[in-house]
Amino acid sequence: MLPTIAREDDTVVMIDQRKLPAKEIYVRCKTAAEVARAIKTMVIRGAPAIGVAAAMGIALGARNSKTTGTQKLAAEFYTICELMASTRPTAVNLFWAIDRMKRSFAAAVEAGESVEQIKDRLDREANAIHDEDIASCRAMGAFGAAVVPHQARILTHCNAGALATAGYGTALGVIRAAVEAGKQVTVVADETRPFLQGARLTAWELVRDGIDTTVITDNMAGALMNQGQLDIVVVGADRIAANGDTANKIGTYTVAVLAREHNIPFYVAAPLSTIDLNALDGRQIPIEERNPREVSHLAGSQLTPDGAHIRNPAFDVTPHHLIAGIITERGICRAPYTESLKRVFETEVARLP
Amino acid sequence: MLPTIAREDDTVVMIDQRKLPAKEIYVRCKTAAEVARAIKTMVIRGAPAIGVAAAMGIALGARNSKTTGTQKLAAEFYTICELMASTRPTAVNLFWAIDRMKRSFAAAVEAGESVEQIKDRLDREANAIHDEDIASCRAMGAFGAAVVPHQARILTHCNAGALATAGYGTALGVIRAAVEAGKQVTVVADETRPFLQGARLTAWELVRDGIDTTVITDNMAGALMNQGQLDIVVVGADRIAANGDTANKIGTYTVAVLAREHNIPFYVAAPLSTIDLNALDGRQIPIEERNPREVSHLAGSQLTPDGAHIRNPAFDVTPHHLIAGIITERGICRAPYTESLKRVFETEVARLP
Repeated sequence: MLPTIAREDDTVVMIDQRKLPAKEIYVRCKTAAEVARAIKTMVIRGAPAIGVAAAMGIALGARNSKTTGTQKLAAEFYTICELMASTRPTAVNLFWAIDRMKRSFAAAVEAGESVEQIKDRLDREANAIHDEDIASCRAMGAFGAAVVPHQARILTHCNAGALATAGYGTALGVIRAAVEAGKQVTVVADETRPFLQGARLTAWELVRDGIDTTVITDNMAGALMNQGQLDIVVVGADRIAANGDTANKIGTYTVAVLAREHNIPFYVAAPLSTIDLNALDGRQIPIEERNPREVSHLAGSQLTPDGAHIRNPAFDVTPHHLIAGIITERGICRAPYTESLKRVFETEVARLP
Repeated sequence: MLPTIAREDDTVVMIDQRKLPAKEIYVRCKTAAEVARAIKTMVIRGAPAIGVAAAMGIALGARNSKTTGTQKLAAEFYTICELMASTRPTAVNLFWAIDRMKRSFAAAVEAGESVEQIKDRLDREANAIHDEDIASCRAMGAFGAAVVPHQARILTHCNAGALATAGYGTALGVIRAAVEAGKQVTVVADETRPFLQGARLTAWELVRDGIDTTVITDNMAGALMNQGQLDIVVVGADRIAANGDTANKIGTYTVAVLAREHNIPFYVAAPLSTIDLNALDGRQIPIEERNPREVSHLAGSQLTPDGAHIRNPAFDVTPHHLIAGIITERGICRAPYTESLKRVFETEVARLP
C-alpha cells in the first residue's frame, strides 16, 4: 500500500506529491500549521486525503498544546480548526473531517475528560478517519468493479487513487478491484493540466501496480472516444451536491460531455464524506481559483508571454444528468440522485457484494 | 507584421517557434534539407506556413544546384520534392505547395527555359505562394469578421495566426480583422498541449498586437462555456475533406463537441489550399502520430513515470456537422459542405465584402 500519509508520535508524514514521479520525498510536519501549509500547497491533495490530513493535523496541534486547562485547549483547538478550514474551499471532506474532530472534542468535554484524555481521543478519531477511509475505498472498489466490463479500456481524469486517499483510492480503487477480479482492464489517464496529477500521480501508482496505463494530454480524450478506444470513465469527486452535481478536478465536466456524446458510461467514485447534502446543486459549491503560475510556469520555465491573462479554476461541476452512477462505500447511487444520495446516508452499512 | 518566414538570396529565414515566447531566435536554412528538417522538427508549423516553407525550400534547393542540364536539374528537383513531402503527413498545404512548384517546373521545361530561367521561375512561384497566403489571410479576415459579434469573447485552439501562415493568420486573421473593425473582442486561448502553441504562440502574437488575451489549459474550455463566458469559437485547419470534415490540432474535436453542447458557433478559417477535395471525408485524412517525448517531457523535465505508455496524435478530425461555417478567402462556406466547398473552387475570386 502506498504511504500517502501517516501519523508518527509527534509528526504527520506525507509523501510530497509535487515531486512525484521524479522523486519520492517525505515531508514531516511537526505542527498543525505545517500540515495546513502542506494541504494549501498541495504536498497532499485529493478530497479524502485532505480530510485525513486535516484530522491528523488537528490531533497533532492539540497534542502539541502546552496548556493544562480544558478551556484554553478548546480555544487553541478551534483556532487550529479555523486554520485547517482556510486551506482549500472545494473538497468538502476537509470540512467533514474538521466537523468530526469538533464533535469528538465536544464529546470529550461533555464526558469531563482531562486534557490528556482529550488529546488521546482526538488522536484516536484522526486515526479512525484514516482507517475508515481505506475501508471505504475497498468497499467502493468492490461495488464499482461490478460495473467495469471485462477488458474495459477505462479513462480516468486527475488522480483519485491511493495518493488522493488514505490508500487504495476511489476511482483507482474501482480499477484496482476490477483488476483483482481478473478483468484485464487497461487505463488511459488524462495528464490533467495544470498540476499534472494524471501524468505524474495516476500513472505512477498504476505502473507500480503493474496495470497497463497510457498517458494522454487532456485534449486527446475526445479523439480516442470518437475512435471507439474507450469503454467507461471513472473519476473521483471533491464535492457532490444533494442533486448529484459533482465538483471534481477541472476538465472533468468536459470528459463527461464527451462521454455522453459517445454513449460511454461516466461514473463517479466517492465516499459519503464527499457528499454535501447542504449544497442543493452545483451552483452552491465554491470553486477554488488557484495561482496563475501553476498554468504559466512549469518546471521553472515560463510558458506564456508577459501580458497574457491566465485563468486557473481548480475544479468544475459536472451536472448530475451526465453521471451514470455514483459509487459509494454503501453501494452505487443512481438517478434520481436527490433520492438515492439521501437514502444512502440512511441505509445500514451494506455487506460487500 | 510578424516575420514568420522570409527568403533571402541563399537562405530561408524562419523564427524558431519552438523557442517562443522566451526567445526570438531566427533559424537560417542554407539548403532544402535544412528547410525540410525545420518543418519536421516544428521550427515552423501551421498548415499554410508549412506550404510556404516547402515552396521556398524547393526553390532554394533548385537554386543551390550545380548542374548545368535541365534533365539533371529535374532529377534533383523531384528528389527535393519527395524530401519535402516526407516531412509531415497531415497538413495538405504541404502537398498543395509541392504540386504548385512541380507544375511551375513543368511549365518552365515546356517553355524550353534554361536552368537559370527555371530557377528564377521557381523563386517567383515560391514568393507568389508566400504573398498570396498573406492576401488570402486578409480576405478570410474580412469575410470572417462579419460573423464575429461586437464584444465577442472568442475561443481559439492552437495557433492559426501570423506564425502559422506567411502573416496575419487564418483564425487569428479573423480576430485581427474584427479588432480592426472596432469590435472590441477578447480572446481565450487554449494552451494546446503538448506543444503549447496556444500558450506560447497565440498569446505572444495577440499580446504584441494589444488584443486582450487569456490563456487557459485545454480542459478549462468546457467549464467556461458552461458558465456562459464564451460566444464564438474560431480555429484553423490542417486539412478539410470534401464533405467538410476538418483535421486540425489535437483537441479541436473536443472544442467542437463542447461548442455544440453549449450552442456556441464553431467556425473554421482556412484558405482553399487547405481543402482537399480528393479526401471524401475525414477518414481519408492521415493523422500524424508524433514522438511521445513531446507529451512525457517538458522543458527538460520528465513528467510521466517510466513504464507508462504515451499517445501523441498531433491532430484530430472534427465532423462537418459540428461546423457552423468554413471561412475561406472567397467567402464563407456553409452546410451542405460537399456542395459549398466544391463551388468555392469554381467561383471567381470574390470581391471583399
